[in-house]
Amino acid sequence: MSQSALFERHKETLEKGISASRTREYWTAYPESPSPRVYGETASKDGEAAFKALLNKNFDFDMPGKIGTVGSEKSPYGFDLGITYPKVDVKVLVSEVEALRQEWATTSIETRTGICLEILDRINKRSFEMGFAVMHTTGQAFMMAFQAGGPHAQDRGLEAVVYAYEDMARTPAVARWEKPQGKRDPIVMEKNFTVVPRGIGLVIGCSTFPTWNSYPGMFASLVTGNAVIVKPHPGGILPLAITVEICRDVLKEEGFNPNLVTLAVDGPDALLAKDLALAPEVKLIDFTGSTGFGNWLEDNARQALVYTEKAGVNCVIIDSTDNFRGMIGNLSFTLSLYSGQMCTTPQNIFIPEGGIETDDGHKSFDEVVAALATGVEKLNSDDERACAILGAIQSEATLERIAKYGKGDNVVLASRSVPMAGFDGATIQTPLILKATDESSYSAELFGPISYVVPSKNTADSLSIVENSVKTNGAISFGVYSTSEDILDQAEAAACRSGVAVSFNLTGPVYVNQTAAFSDFHATGCNPAANAALSDTAYVSNRYRVVQSRRHI
Amino acid sequence: MSQSALFERHKETLEKGISASRTREYWTAYPESPSPRVYGETASKDGEAAFKALLNKNFDFDMPGKIGTVGSEKSPYGFDLGITYPKVDVKVLVSEVEALRQEWATTSIETRTGICLEILDRINKRSFEMGFAVMHTTGQAFMMAFQAGGPHAQDRGLEAVVYAYEDMARTPAVARWEKPQGKRDPIVMEKNFTVVPRGIGLVIGCSTFPTWNSYPGMFASLVTGNAVIVKPHPGGILPLAITVEICRDVLKEEGFNPNLVTLAVDGPDALLAKDLALAPEVKLIDFTGSTGFGNWLEDNARQALVYTEKAGVNCVIIDSTDNFRGMIGNLSFTLSLYSGQMCTTPQNIFIPEGGIETDDGHKSFDEVVAALATGVEKLNSDDERACAILGAIQSEATLERIAKYGKGDNVVLASRSVPMAGFDGATIQTPLILKATDESSYSAELFGPISYVVPSKNTADSLSIVENSVKTNGAISFGVYSTSEDILDQAEAAACRSGVAVSFNLTGPVYVNQTAAFSDFHATGCNPAANAALSDTAYVSNRYRVVQSRRHI
Repeated sequence: MSQSALFERHKETLEKGISASRTREYWTAYPESPSPRVYGETASKDGEAAFKALLNKNFDFDMPGKIGTVGSEKSPYGFDLGITYPKVDVKVLVSEVEALRQEWATTSIETRTGICLEILDRINKRSFEMGFAVMHTTGQAFMMAFQAGGPHAQDRGLEAVVYAYEDMARTPAVARWEKPQGKRDPIVMEKNFTVVPRGIGLVIGCSTFPTWNSYPGMFASLVTGNAVIVKPHPGGILPLAITVEICRDVLKEEGFNPNLVTLAVDGPDALLAKDLALAPEVKLIDFTGSTGFGNWLEDNARQALVYTEKAGVNCVIIDSTDNFRGMIGNLSFTLSLYSGQMCTTPQNIFIPEGGIETDDGHKSFDEVVAALATGVEKLNSDDERACAILGAIQSEATLERIAKYGKGDNVVLASRSVPMAGFDGATIQTPLILKATDESSYSAELFGPISYVVPSKNTADSLSIVENSVKTNGAISFGVYSTSEDILDQAEAAACRSGVAVSFNLTGPVYVNQTAAFSDFHATGCNPAANAALSDTAYVSNRYRVVQSRRHI
Repeated sequence: MSQSALFERHKETLEKGISASRTREYWTAYPESPSPRVYGETASKDGEAAFKALLNKNFDFDMPGKIGTVGSEKSPYGFDLGITYPKVDVKVLVSEVEALRQEWATTSIETRTGICLEILDRINKRSFEMGFAVMHTTGQAFMMAFQAGGPHAQDRGLEAVVYAYEDMARTPAVARWEKPQGKRDPIVMEKNFTVVPRGIGLVIGCSTFPTWNSYPGMFASLVTGNAVIVKPHPGGILPLAITVEICRDVLKEEGFNPNLVTLAVDGPDALLAKDLALAPEVKLIDFTGSTGFGNWLEDNARQALVYTEKAGVNCVIIDSTDNFRGMIGNLSFTLSLYSGQMCTTPQNIFIPEGGIETDDGHKSFDEVVAALATGVEKLNSDDERACAILGAIQSEATLERIAKYGKGDNVVLASRSVPMAGFDGATIQTPLILKATDESSYSAELFGPISYVVPSKNTADSLSIVENSVKTNGAISFGVYSTSEDILDQAEAAACRSGVAVSFNLTGPVYVNQTAAFSDFHATGCNPAANAALSDTAYVSNRYRVVQSRRHI
C-alpha cells in the first residue's frame, strides 16, 4: 500500500488523539471492553488459541546477530511457556541496525506516523492473544491483562505518537523567508527543515507491564525516525515478541527493512542491558524497573538520553470522609488489584492517631485500620473473585518479601494463599497490611501486596511527611481523603511542590493506581520515581532534532 | 498594573511570534535598525549618555547574600569600565532565592508571560544603552553590538518565551473528564493541571555575546516559573547587569520579589560557577563557553538539566560557483565580521586541490586562496571601515593565539593591527588565514580571526572530512558553494547525518555566521558543539512539569 495511504487511513485517529491530549477530555482509540460485540464473536477463543499455538516453540525472527536461542519464561499461573527466542550478539545487532537505519531516518514524518498507527491498529486486533500473553508472563488476571496489556497500552503508545507527530509537524518542511530591504528588493531565501532522529532507541521492558510501560518509549522513538531495539525483561518476553513481530510485518509490507525494530533477549548467562545501553550508537533509552539499574543507566549511558521509571513509595492520606464505606471499598480494591504489583499502588496510608471524622461518626485510628483490613479481607474472601482481582505474583522476590514481612508482630492483616481452579501452581496471595512503627520501616519501596498503615500526629503532619517522602523516595500516585477544601488545597500545593499527581476522595470506580491516556499524565518527571511523564512534549521532543538548509531563490 | 493587563498588552506580539515560529517566515518584534525614526531622535545620544553614567560607579542591587563589591571589566577599546557590582555569598543567595521562589512558581502562565514580554519591551527601549554596554565589553563594533546585543538578542529571548508559552498552554488548567458507562451514569471527574517549575535556573554568560547567548535560557527558565540566577562572564557583566536590573524593576512593579532574578558576579579570587552549578536547588543550567567547562557541567551538575553551547569547528566547502566574485565577497565579510569571534564563524575552508569551476573560468586552488586573501585584505584596507566590521579582540588569549599562529610558515594572509581613531588602546586585528598542512592542524577550534584553507582531493573528500569533523569536533554552521544540485543534495544529506545547519551559495547580504530568530534554528543540539538548539520545543518543555489533581464531580 502506498505509504501516505496508511497516514490517510489513520488520520482521523491521529487528529482525535491530538484534540484529546489538548482538552484532556475522555477519549480512547482502542475499546477496553473485551466484548464479542467489539472484538468479534470468536475473538476470545481465537486469541487463546493463538497464544497456545506459540507455546513450546521457537519464536523466530530473521534478525542480524542471531547466535542461537534463549528464553525460559514461566507463567505465574504455574507452567513453563517453553518458548525460545533468538539469542543475539549485541555488537553485530547494533552495528547492523546502525548501518540500515538511514532509510527510516530519511523518510517523511507522515510515512512514519502512518506506519506506527497501522502497527498499533494491528496490535489492537490481536488484543486477546496479547491478553493471554500478558496474563501468563505478568500474572495479571485475564481482564486486567487484556485491558492494561492491550487497549490501555495501545492508547499510551498512540499518545506518544500523537505528541511526537504534533511536535515534528510544528516545523514546516519548507519555508520562504522574505526580508524587506526598504526601497531595494527583499532578500528571499528558501529554507528546508528536516527532522533528524538521534540514532537507535533502546527500550528496556519490565516484568509486570511489558507492553504498557514499553509502548510509549518504543513508539516515541520509532515515529521520530529512530531504529528500535527492544530488550524485554526475561520474565516478560512474549508480549513484546508479538509486538516486535507486528512492527516488523508492517515495516516489511511497506518496503522497509524489518530490522528497524528488533528484539534482544537476555540469556541466563548473558544479560544484555548494559552492553546495549553503552553501545555508542544507542542514543535513546527507555527503562522501567529498579532504581538501582535506572540510576546506573543515568550515570553510565551518557551518550544517550535516558528516560527512566524507577521505584517509588506511594502514599494515601486519610483526613476525613463523607463516604466511609466508599473510601474503604475503594482502597480495598486499590490494594488488592494485581496484588499491588503496580508502580501506582499505594504503600503507606497515613491516618491521624486521634482518628477521623466520617459520615458514620468519629472513627478511631484502630477503627479505620480495622475497617480497611476487613474490607480487603472480604473483597478477597471468595477464591474465584479474589483470583480475578489479585492475579498471580510475578516474581519469586515478591513472594519472599510477603513471607518475610508477614512474620513481624506488626501484622494488621495477614496474606493468604489463594487456590485457583485449573492452575495448581499459581502463586496467588492476598494483601499483607502492616502497622508502621517508625519512618525507617516504611520509607523504602516494598514492591507487591504489602502496605503500611501509619499513625500521624494529625493531617498537617501527614502532609509534611508525604511531601518529604515524595521528594526523597519518589512517588507516582498520591491519594487524599478529606471533606475540607482547605486540606485539599494544602494537599494540592504539597503535591505541586513535591511533584506528584494527586487524586481526591476516590470512593467509586476510579482508583488511585489507574490513569487514563490522553487525560491523566502517568508520573510527573520531577520526583525520584521517574524522570519523565507519559506522555508530554518533553517526552518526545528531544528524540529528534531539526537540521535546516537555506539558499537564496 | 493588573498582571493580566501586561499579557493583554503584549498578546499580539506573542501571537505573531507563535505564528512566525511555525511558518519560519521572516518576522521580528524588535527593529534592528538604529534609525532615529524607529528609536527616537535622541535615542543614540541618550543611550550613550546612560552608558557613560554607569562608568566608574557601583552598580548596586538590593540582593541577598551581598558581601562586598566586585568587577573589573575592561573595554576592548582600551579603557577600564570602572564598574563594581555586588559580590555575593553563593550559599546565602541560593538558599534565599529557593525560599522565596514559590510566589513566582504558583502564579499563572499568563502573568509570567506578560511580565517576561514587558521585560523584553523595556530592554528593547534601552537598546542604545545596551549597544554601548555590549560594544565595550565584547569589543563588537557599535552597529553589531546594537543589533546582536539588542534587537536580535531580544528576538531570541522572545522566541524562547513563545515556545514555552505555547507548550505550557497546550495543557488546559482544568478539564472535565466524562467516561461513558453504558446504561449507567457516566463517571465524571474534574482534573486540574498545574505547571510546576523545576527550581532555580542558572544562566552562565559568555564574554562575546553576553545578551544574545543568555536571553534564551534566561527567559525560558523565567517564563516557566523558575527563579533565575545570572552568572555573567567576568569580562561581560554590564549588559547582563542592565538586563537583570530591568527584570527586577518589572517584577517589583508587578508585586513580585525582585530577587526572583539575581546577579552573581565572579571575583578574581572567587569563581562562582562551580559552586552555583552544584547547588542542589539549581535545577536548570544554561551555559555558553568552553568545551572543557561545558563538559564539566554535564558530568557534574547531575541534579540539573544542562543546556550547553560549546566549541565547534565550522567548515565551508567550495566545489564550484556561478558567482565567484560574490562568493569571495561574502566569505571575506564572514571571516572579518567581529574578527571571527562568533561561534558560527567558519574556520576551515575546503577547496579541491585541482581547483574549481566558476563563472570566471577554472580557478586553481592557489587562485581561489589568493582571491580570498585579497578579498579579506581589501575589505579591511580602510582603517575606519575595518574597525566598523572587525570590532576589537575581546580577550588576551585570542590576541596571543593570533600572534602564535601568525608566526608559522603556512601563513596565507597575515593579521595586521588596525588603529582606531579616539580609542588608542583598542585591540583590533584583521583576519589571519593559514594553509592547512594535515588534519591535526585544523581539527581543534582556534577561536578568533584565524581560518584555514584546506586542500582536499575533491568535493567528495571535502564532504567526507566535514561530516566526520562535525560528528567529532562539533559545528554550528556549515557553508557549501556548488553549482551542482547533486552536490548540494549530498551536502544536505551529510549535514543531516552529522547534525549541522547548512547554507548554500551565499553570495549576497546573508552570511553563514548569521541566523534569524523565528526562522533559523541556532545550533542543532545533535553534534558536540551544542546539546540544544535556540529555540525549539525541546529547549523549553522540560524546564517545567505538569502536576495534576482529580476528583469526582
